[in-house]
Amino acid sequence: MTPAPAPEAPSREAVVELLGLLALGELLAFERMVFDARLAPDLGRRAALSEAAVGEIRNYRLIADRLTALGADPAEAMAPFREAFRSFDASTSPRDWLEALVKVYLGDAVADDFFRAVSSSLEDADREVIETVLAENGAADLAAAEIRAAVEADESVTGRLSLWARRLVGEGINRAQGVAAANERLTGIIVGDGGTLDALLRRLTRAHQDRMKSVGLNN
Amino acid sequence: MTPAPAPEAPSREAVVELLGLLALGELLAFERMVFDARLAPDLGRRAALSEAAVGEIRNYRLIADRLTALGADPAEAMAPFREAFRSFDASTSPRDWLEALVKVYLGDAVADDFFRAVSSSLEDADREVIETVLAENGAADLAAAEIRAAVEADESVTGRLSLWARRLVGEGINRAQGVAAANERLTGIIVGDGGTLDALLRRLTRAHQDRMKSVGLNN
Repeated sequence: MTPAPAPEAPSREAVVELLGLLALGELLAFERMVFDARLAPDLGRRAALSEAAVGEIRNYRLIADRLTALGADPAEAMAPFREAFRSFDASTSPRDWLEALVKVYLGDAVADDFFRAVSSSLEDADREVIETVLAENGAADLAAAEIRAAVEADESVTGRLSLWARRLVGEGINRAQGVAAANERLTGIIVGDGGTLDALLRRLTRAHQDRMKSVGLNN
Repeated sequence: MTPAPAPEAPSREAVVELLGLLALGELLAFERMVFDARLAPDLGRRAALSEAAVGEIRNYRLIADRLTALGADPAEAMAPFREAFRSFDASTSPRDWLEALVKVYLGDAVADDFFRAVSSSLEDADREVIETVLAENGAADLAAAEIRAAVEADESVTGRLSLWARRLVGEGINRAQGVAAANERLTGIIVGDGGTLDALLRRLTRAHQDRMKSVGLNN
């Protein structure tokens, strides 16, 4: 009996695409948090969200440096994903501070789940970058604490924020399917051997539902 | 002959007002750079300006911590100056990447001159905070290098950017006079013993003119 062939390591091109997607996600998450910080009810919390956002731009730098080490230009690697992020962001513009925080919390959490799901197939140096990125939770922790306090102080926000969270997830799934359809090589590395995008999205959605409960929101 | 009385140390209230002004300036400079980074011609430079902006939010944190050590609430200390900054910013919204960089370069430089002028009358702990803030020049250096390269590549931008710089300085002087008129105690600590606001503004304007030349712009 011949042993099953070892799973093929992803090509350099696929890894560059994946890191380009992650780098742009971190850069835009940073910008988004700083923009949305203006929705804060006071200058102290406005500054706190901006300070927490610094973790995202640090993550961007780590991933950009890894891209450079792989001989790729970070700006070029990010460019193909601009439109998907722009369109997601345009359709999910928060109207107030709590909506902004739900977007920070869920965006960060879903991104972490996603990174975790894809990193196992990568070689050590790429996986280490992703693990360092995953360890940064400043913005998500701040957002979770604020959301929990708001829900405790006023139960009536629960319904509105839960609906908003579902809308964010729906728009996110839409965009993910679009990116996957347009980038076959990238999708291969994301879903792994024998996996499907639908199965991955279902897994991410289940983890998301548990996370909603932990800040007092409904599925 | 009796010796001249030692200059009186500024009151705690005046120092809190000064640090509140500086803290808000750093926080809003950070936000402004991250917003304006979207005007960059490519994702690499967009990210570079956001990364350079991190120095400003770090400065904000240093000043906020000093305010806390003085028993003041940073958000409260900053609040009186919101309107002056908002109005300056609304009247000086850059239309493109180079205008954004001129605003970064001049804003940072004038702020540095200002900090330097006022710090001599402060006690050690306050002066140390300001000296650390002054040592951070990442964003100004990036902006100066980009402006110099743009002027060298295309002389025709010189006139337009020089005019823009004059407008920024004019608006800045306007706002400074407004803040000074509304905050007598603060103005006392800023201009020092026997000084006048006009003399300080003239000194700042002269330093500004030298700095314009160093990036290839006219007065």
